[in-house]
Amino acid sequence: LVLVSFSDPLLFMSTRTKKTTVGTIDDDVLAFTAGKDIVLDLQLVEADCLGSAAHAIMLSRMKVKPPVLTKDETKRIIAVLGSIREMGRIGTFKITPADQDVHLAIENHLTLALGDIGKKIHTGRSRNDQVALDLRLFARARLQEIMEATLDLAVTMMRWGKKHAMVPMVGRTHMQPAMPSTVGLWATSFTEALFDDLELLSTAYRLNNRSPLGAAAGYGVPLPIDRELTSRLLVFEEPVHNVMYAINARGKLETVILEALGQVMLTLSRLAQDFMIYTMPEFGYFTLPPAFCTGSSIMPNKQNPDVMELIRSRAAVVHAYGQCCRSILLAAPSGYNRDLQDTKEPLLEGLASTLASLRIAARCVADTTVNSDRLRASFTPGVFATDRAVELVGQGVPFRDAYHQVKSELGALAAVDPDEAVRRKTHTGTTGGLNFDLYSEYASDWKTGLASERRRVDRAMNTLMKTP
Amino acid sequence: LVLVSFSDPLLFMSTRTKKTTVGTIDDDVLAFTAGKDIVLDLQLVEADCLGSAAHAIMLSRMKVKPPVLTKDETKRIIAVLGSIREMGRIGTFKITPADQDVHLAIENHLTLALGDIGKKIHTGRSRNDQVALDLRLFARARLQEIMEATLDLAVTMMRWGKKHAMVPMVGRTHMQPAMPSTVGLWATSFTEALFDDLELLSTAYRLNNRSPLGAAAGYGVPLPIDRELTSRLLVFEEPVHNVMYAINARGKLETVILEALGQVMLTLSRLAQDFMIYTMPEFGYFTLPPAFCTGSSIMPNKQNPDVMELIRSRAAVVHAYGQCCRSILLAAPSGYNRDLQDTKEPLLEGLASTLASLRIAARCVADTTVNSDRLRASFTPGVFATDRAVELVGQGVPFRDAYHQVKSELGALAAVDPDEAVRRKTHTGTTGGLNFDLYSEYASDWKTGLASERRRVDRAMNTLMKTP
Amino acid sequence: LVLVSFSDPLLFMSTRTKKTTVGTIDDDVLAFTAGKDIVLDLQLVEADCLGSAAHAIMLSRMKVKPPVLTKDETKRIIAVLGSIREMGRIGTFKITPADQDVHLAIENHLTLALGDIGKKIHTGRSRNDQVALDLRLFARARLQEIMEATLDLAVTMMRWGKKHAMVPMVGRTHMQPAMPSTVGLWATSFTEALFDDLELLSTAYRLNNRSPLGAAAGYGVPLPIDRELTSRLLVFEEPVHNVMYAINARGKLETVILEALGQVMLTLSRLAQDFMIYTMPEFGYFTLPPAFCTGSSIMPNKQNPDVMELIRSRAAVVHAYGQCCRSILLAAPSGYNRDLQDTKEPLLEGLASTLASLRIAARCVADTTVNSDRLRASFTPGVFATDRAVELVGQGVPFRDAYHQVKSELGALAAVDPDEAVRRKTHTGTTGGLNFDLYSEYASDWKTGLASERRRVDRAMNTLMKTP
Amino acid sequence: LVLVSFSDPLLFMSTRTKKTTVGTIDDDVLAFTAGKDIVLDLQLVEADCLGSAAHAIMLSRMKVKPPVLTKDETKRIIAVLGSIREMGRIGTFKITPADQDVHLAIENHLTLALGDIGKKIHTGRSRNDQVALDLRLFARARLQEIMEATLDLAVTMMRWGKKHAMVPMVGRTHMQPAMPSTVGLWATSFTEALFDDLELLSTAYRLNNRSPLGAAAGYGVPLPIDRELTSRLLVFEEPVHNVMYAINARGKLETVILEALGQVMLTLSRLAQDFMIYTMPEFGYFTLPPAFCTGSSIMPNKQNPDVMELIRSRAAVVHAYGQCCRSILLAAPSGYNRDLQDTKEPLLEGLASTLASLRIAARCVADTTVNSDRLRASFTPGVFATDRAVELVGQGVPFRDAYHQVKSELGALAAVDPDEAVRRKTHTGTTGGLNFDLYSEYASDWKTGLASERRRVDRAMNTLMKTP
Repeated sequence: LVLVSFSDPLLFMSTRTKKTTVGTIDDDVLAFTAGKDIVLDLQLVEADCLGSAAHAIMLSRMKVKPPVLTKDETKRIIAVLGSIREMGRIGTFKITPADQDVHLAIENHLTLALGDIGKKIHTGRSRNDQVALDLRLFARARLQEIMEATLDLAVTMMRWGKKHAMVPMVGRTHMQPAMPSTVGLWATSFTEALFDDLELLSTAYRLNNRSPLGAAAGYGVPLPIDRELTSRLLVFEEPVHNVMYAINARGKLETVILEALGQVMLTLSRLAQDFMIYTMPEFGYFTLPPAFCTGSSIMPNKQNPDVMELIRSRAAVVHAYGQCCRSILLAAPSGYNRDLQDTKEPLLEGLASTLASLRIAARCVADTTVNSDRLRASFTPGVFATDRAVELVGQGVPFRDAYHQVKSELGALAAVDPDEAVRRKTHTGTTGGLNFDLYSEYASDWKTGLASERRRVDRAMNTLMKTP
Repeated sequence: LVLVSFSDPLLFMSTRTKKTTVGTIDDDVLAFTAGKDIVLDLQLVEADCLGSAAHAIMLSRMKVKPPVLTKDETKRIIAVLGSIREMGRIGTFKITPADQDVHLAIENHLTLALGDIGKKIHTGRSRNDQVALDLRLFARARLQEIMEATLDLAVTMMRWGKKHAMVPMVGRTHMQPAMPSTVGLWATSFTEALFDDLELLSTAYRLNNRSPLGAAAGYGVPLPIDRELTSRLLVFEEPVHNVMYAINARGKLETVILEALGQVMLTLSRLAQDFMIYTMPEFGYFTLPPAFCTGSSIMPNKQNPDVMELIRSRAAVVHAYGQCCRSILLAAPSGYNRDLQDTKEPLLEGLASTLASLRIAARCVADTTVNSDRLRASFTPGVFATDRAVELVGQGVPFRDAYHQVKSELGALAAVDPDEAVRRKTHTGTTGGLNFDLYSEYASDWKTGLASERRRVDRAMNTLMKTP
Repeated sequence: LVLVSFSDPLLFMSTRTKKTTVGTIDDDVLAFTAGKDIVLDLQLVEADCLGSAAHAIMLSRMKVKPPVLTKDETKRIIAVLGSIREMGRIGTFKITPADQDVHLAIENHLTLALGDIGKKIHTGRSRNDQVALDLRLFARARLQEIMEATLDLAVTMMRWGKKHAMVPMVGRTHMQPAMPSTVGLWATSFTEALFDDLELLSTAYRLNNRSPLGAAAGYGVPLPIDRELTSRLLVFEEPVHNVMYAINARGKLETVILEALGQVMLTLSRLAQDFMIYTMPEFGYFTLPPAFCTGSSIMPNKQNPDVMELIRSRAAVVHAYGQCCRSILLAAPSGYNRDLQDTKEPLLEGLASTLASLRIAARCVADTTVNSDRLRASFTPGVFATDRAVELVGQGVPFRDAYHQVKSELGALAAVDPDEAVRRKTHTGTTGGLNFDLYSEYASDWKTGLASERRRVDRAMNTLMKTP
Repeated sequence: LVLVSFSDPLLFMSTRTKKTTVGTIDDDVLAFTAGKDIVLDLQLVEADCLGSAAHAIMLSRMKVKPPVLTKDETKRIIAVLGSIREMGRIGTFKITPADQDVHLAIENHLTLALGDIGKKIHTGRSRNDQVALDLRLFARARLQEIMEATLDLAVTMMRWGKKHAMVPMVGRTHMQPAMPSTVGLWATSFTEALFDDLELLSTAYRLNNRSPLGAAAGYGVPLPIDRELTSRLLVFEEPVHNVMYAINARGKLETVILEALGQVMLTLSRLAQDFMIYTMPEFGYFTLPPAFCTGSSIMPNKQNPDVMELIRSRAAVVHAYGQCCRSILLAAPSGYNRDLQDTKEPLLEGLASTLASLRIAARCVADTTVNSDRLRASFTPGVFATDRAVELVGQGVPFRDAYHQVKSELGALAAVDPDEAVRRKTHTGTTGGLNFDLYSEYASDWKTGLASERRRVDRAMNTLMKTP
């Protein structure tokens, strides 16, 4: 049986049948409190193995007599953790309702495999710092993928924009035609937004990249644990110093991450909305690749931009996840509160949704066709009015006079060539003044930085599982 | 393979492996757009069977030559729908990724069982009005359960409150001691809040209880379908008249329902917070039943009110679901938009979460112990100050004089007996003036009304599956 | 000096200058805690006068010896309250920072005018039940106006829709052309949504229409106050029974009201979005009245639908107000908490924003022009495809065959006359089956009900101020 | 007349009186669209003067013949802008309804003072880039103050925490007693949270610190404007390159800032909640300074922590402002949309609310008394249970055995001295292992950085107003 949603507790919990109480905890209570953990936690198997390996190594070196773990015991623990990690990857590791969560499932597995040795792994650790650690390790890996995918989309938009850089496009304000613009200007406006999103993601990454391990339940332990060592083994920047904050930061960090993801989704949502408008037959500026559209089982005539619509709604979903975490945090005082369990799904789903949206958007954009004829044909005389008035100003006519002069002869503007109009504006960042080299440089810097961080982390994680 | 989260699309979607495109739709696109439907839709099996049965009966009576379905064909269709409904109940009905959703899964099943007859069921119907119908039928059933559970908790609080009606309890404002109160006043403040919540739920129920069937994609069909008949068969109040609104109402209705659920959760959250405070050892007013508390795997001394904490966080979760739907709707114009798919999970989960929270709260409250000694011991002289000042006013002393007189002799108030103090206030709705009969009457009216509605609907649904 | 925003406390509060502390409360603290009350409360002058009048009458009849107020004193109090109410209406009543809020401002004014008599008005009342009462009275009056404005817009859309009932319009799904529709179907889809919104508003109105007076700080008073009497004088349906709930309901009620307003705004936002799309020159379906559009100071060519854009954003604003109240409530336990002060601005602004949006939308729609030529010209052959396929089904062709047949000859559909197509669909609620009489009946029922409620309340309020 | 809220449009807009239409725009429309700008914009006077001065200098150096502005004209313009800036500071600058907003008010003032010269200032600029610039300049100044106030509170908590570093305090999880902790650990958990908030604020500051000037309506102008020059004069990091993104970033940036502010408020809200709990008489851990508490006009016995309650509710308010901006952005496509006007109030109010909350919290904490006796007295035997079990583990006893041994002799733990218990835990970041020097170093680095940035900006702004 697989618990897939909050609805499942209802299977157990009926007003009609009387429940038996096993041990001290009522079955219904167990179903209510475990929630979706046994499904969601499947995503945390790898993180829990890595964190446990680092903890085991630290225990083996901790200055107590006799040592909590011998070198050999540590070796055997890490070997089993390695096999669990592998099972997690191929999907054969199971978490049963009796396990409650990934932490107990792995501990039980270790004990089954190694007997008493397995029972020692939890020494000096609480479920509180363990889950905080797992979520940070998991988020770190996902944020790397998300930053790579964000960069990838930024570059895709830039290349696609460069290809159609000077194709004229009616620039709009208030959704109404405003002034001459280009496909290049439109496309790279997203590139630049995504660069800003990368900054936000990397701040979230940095705040996340600290080790809570050793905080236990938020008040430390009376053992000479070495928090710097575990932090170093897991290549975190440093331990979160204050152990109470290490626990209080749970929920806060999820919110910080979800808010950065929410910014990415805002960018994507705007992109999606623009595509939905510009692919309506009344516009026909762009044609989405057929493989990214769906028909209708009842309407033979349909080609719907479902992918774009769902990106737009996923933005609302990711924002709602952030809202959920903020509300949970607002209602609770310091110290671990069980409420925090409900920030797990928002985080995991928010990361997954954002990554999926970025990847599918990049593939869709890359294959989108630009219909230059339709774009050029959509220029009406009014679109050139402002440029004309400003040009008169450049010739010394006071603006108000220029404005009225242009307004009285709107018809005469028809003759303006849109291609000419967009070339004529040349200052920094405008249609004729876009600096694609600047974008390439940024992109290249990000690429190098992200690749190096990925190598650094991957190498350390592999080393860790081979230690000692 | 079971898709449990948005993360699953990532299994299919990798930047490394090249995907093949089957038919016109790319595999990644399919994974992205189908989302969690194949899991979530398992909850809609019964509703889809009921709706399809009503639609089949209508088709068999529709005045076209030849009839779309004969009486016999209709009979056979309903028989198969009956067996699918049963499979849905016991959990053996499957929705495959190829099916995409419950609607096609059932249609495919019908066609497998009945050949060409099955292919006719979709005549004059679109997936748009079909899913709108399913969600309304599903929500109707769940809202009935939720209203029953809300009433049940209201009654539980009332009975528990009546049992301890005159046990004195320090009334608080600003979380600080304020004036004498009672356990009865505190407990029935929730009873009354839940009665208000029932009003909100019943308004949502009523708006939900209309049939969208026949709206097709929002523009009707050029066939003489009988929308009143299907509405009647499914005992809806009436069809949503305007077919475009029948489709536009999707999302709006989910939001209305989630906002009513959100109000229930606000009431529960406040209840939970009060319990968390009053069960801290510093208060000790109440003791939660041990079966509803959890210990700690590391701290031998713990008895934690996890259930209450999770009720508090579930309130934030349900609010976030409402927020999600509102944001989705804000961003989209008229007519069906694919974005609406993402309002399904919020609705289903919001209903399940609220129901589970109500049921567990009722069971927990019923077994909660009241520690009268601790409650009485917590009265400090200041708590009686206001009553004393007001009493002086009743004796003709101007309030400001009374206030200062009392303030200057706060110590002398210690002698007041809390039991006496709470008996002395007798006007409507105060500690000594609570009318439990009034609550019983309300409760009884609701009980009768809800039971009758349930009978009405259950009887009709059973009749429907036996028709014709 | 007028405090207009949270920013004003900053004027008082500087890290550089040392503040003096007057009495026990620090100036900065006063500025921080009073917040915007002295501005916002100007809206509550009338409500506070009405509530105080009812309270005075009750005090004069309360069975204590000597009576708290004599008949003559009550008369004089009500006379002064009448003049304050008038000052409030014409905008000459002032609330000073020293007053802190409307309640003290009015009490101070009474005491200034009547000496010791004024000091008695607060007997048996707390600021908590007083503000709860004021907000309910204020919201009742505003909700009446809002329900009237909602009905007005519903009727406007219906009449405008009826006038253009059979003008063909391309029906859309996924923002793409889908099937034949009409201006009438589109317009009345909003009429029907607004009727649903009226149901939600009236539920909020009903929950609001109960008297909290006499709850004092949530625990009643040791005086024989007559809560039924004040409730009757103010024509509430009944008193909120439980005095603790009367105070706990603050915030909850604001949220209920804001969620109903939010639903109205969702309807308006969708209307606004549709107008923004259909008035783009690429569509040109409708032309907004020039008086409702704004030009640009720099672009001579612009006619922008600012009103529609701002209605869309106001929907987000009203939703955010609801979110604010929900979050405030989630974080606080039972009993009055000062947090509730921050639900006042959301309520007042939410009511005002919704009313302003409804009124301006109604005026704008009424004068919007329908361009039938553009609407008819936008029909492409594909739009008729589904109808054609369904018609074949009606003639006995299996749907899949019909679907493929139509798809292979999409070009041949061009000959279909849109006017004919929308007439041909005649079942309930579709293009040719709209029942405008039904809408008129609903509208007429609502009109009668709202007018009668307004008369009932207005008459009672006038009587009250003339009593005794 | 001062417009203070959305309600004001209602004064103009009545269904009863017929409005006259002045010019092309209806009065009601003007009231609806101008909204609160004429009040809110008073905060932008200084920013608009600075931006206009930079723009004027750029115009005077722009390579067109004849120059748009001569050196002398520029000098005169800047002189008048200087006097307007001063009027803004002392509160004598007015924006009339006819002005609509600060931009026209200042332009009108310039024209009044300088005739035709004033009319040239708007050359090559649109209201769109102008308001985007003003908001960035305003936010930059406020964010500096907010970062300083955040640092100030972090340092206050650290010093207060250091003073009471080793005072024992019961550490809690699930709001229940858990393990020994200290006032120092609790206090510095906030210091560390605030350091994280500083990182988030500084990322927002950096994204904000770019110049949109020259983007005009989002499509640039056909004049050789020098966007690098204006950016340099206003000491921005650089211009936002893509002119369309410069406009699209409006709203996004507000959201980024509000999300960073929301994180600060989350920290403050938790602090406030802890204070509210620990100052209840049942705890009595801390005593808030009397000047920061308010009494009750009716209850002689009250000392309420209003400031803390309002900080908690302001957190909800600031979150709602962020939500408002997110929703507005989600609903709109690329290009300036009027909806963005409604992101102005959330930004201005969010900045002001956060700053006021930080400042008052710092003053309140600094004077809060620690009641060591109450803190020590609250230790019950169970609080030491975990430490004892872990210590046994350190002595070689398997954890499960240790756990059961401790549980069976909970009573014997009573003898443990809390002071001893908190000293005994010495690893990094726990009660006995806090590194205050580390915090001092961080604080000192931030102090230096913030002071240097403030000097850099202030100097440049002063130079600008003296130029040329």
